[in-house]
Amino acid sequence: MKNKILIEISARHIHLSQKDLESIFGKGYELKKLKHLSLTGEFAAKETLGIQIGKRILSGVRIIGPIRKETQVELSHTDAVLLRIHAPVRKSGDIINTPGAVLIGPKKKIKIRHGLINAWRHIHCNPKEAQKLGFKNGMLISVKTNGICSITFHNVRVEVGESYNLCMHLDTDEGNAACILKNGKGTIVKNNFSD
Amino acid sequence: MKNKILIEISARHIHLSQKDLESIFGKGYELKKLKHLSLTGEFAAKETLGIQIGKRILSGVRIIGPIRKETQVELSHTDAVLLRIHAPVRKSGDIINTPGAVLIGPKKKIKIRHGLINAWRHIHCNPKEAQKLGFKNGMLISVKTNGICSITFHNVRVEVGESYNLCMHLDTDEGNAACILKNGKGTIVKNNFSD
Repeated sequence: MKNKILIEISARHIHLSQKDLESIFGKGYELKKLKHLSLTGEFAAKETLGIQIGKRILSGVRIIGPIRKETQVELSHTDAVLLRIHAPVRKSGDIINTPGAVLIGPKKKIKIRHGLINAWRHIHCNPKEAQKLGFKNGMLISVKTNGICSITFHNVRVEVGESYNLCMHLDTDEGNAACILKNGKGTIVKNNFSD
Repeated sequence: MKNKILIEISARHIHLSQKDLESIFGKGYELKKLKHLSLTGEFAAKETLGIQIGKRILSGVRIIGPIRKETQVELSHTDAVLLRIHAPVRKSGDIINTPGAVLIGPKKKIKIRHGLINAWRHIHCNPKEAQKLGFKNGMLISVKTNGICSITFHNVRVEVGESYNLCMHLDTDEGNAACILKNGKGTIVKNNFSD
């Protein structure tokens, strides 16, 4: 049996630490929910920030709540080219030796020393789904999409979490390359064919 | 033996017909060469145009010479999203029922009825290379890239031409998804695994 998987495209976004949130918006500030995301507990906030590197600015970048331990900005390579930086491919939270930027809020701006990454393509699943699929946290698999722009994505990281439901997350470049603009479907290929 | 292939990334660009070239730049105008391209006889021109749809404009889009039979604008899906249109995946020259736009030159602008496409991912090769690889014009194959962002591109069209040398052409979304910004390498997979 083929294992189908939902694919969701993540546009560029920002996760903020409590400290950075308060530095930008003021002490005790709480993000306003715009809409819930499929990932349990996460939400797109009404607030957006500008990301500045030198003279270049990406405006209106959505904040994703709730707050995290560390501030992290997830960009596509297209975004990184616009900012004239290289955004290294990293799993979430792995931000050592990544570029920093100035984050521009409505009234205040702050400088972050690091945190700009290209999110490593990944799937989320809960322990029950992982067991059924024979997956372990951190494992690399492949996922194939269909249609005229069909692609097999290799080196897809498996991330197992209690709050997760089976879903693949790609950035906008990866989605566009596969002609998937918002949501799509793929087929899990367990053997990762990457070199 | 594995068949390696060079990969070149094509940014958005415009091919102009003689008629449209003269409508924008004046009678008898000739494009100025900026640099030669790998495709024999083709060159990036010094001239760029704006592409306007409604209120949205993509500025500084490079013209590729020499002139062609029909005007054609090759965009990535990222570009198409910025213009709020759908650019259908088409092989070069297949522009019936595709969106049009206003092309803005330095002094004059013209309206094209159609011609905006997303170039179907393809490889070029000459007849000798095609014979060696067992390829025929129009055949669909797969090409795999390496590294952390490894991808296998399916439905890659084979285009055989006397003036061609073996090379794969991807747009910026496809290149970015595979972490290839300008040039890279891939491996030809003869069986096209796409559904």
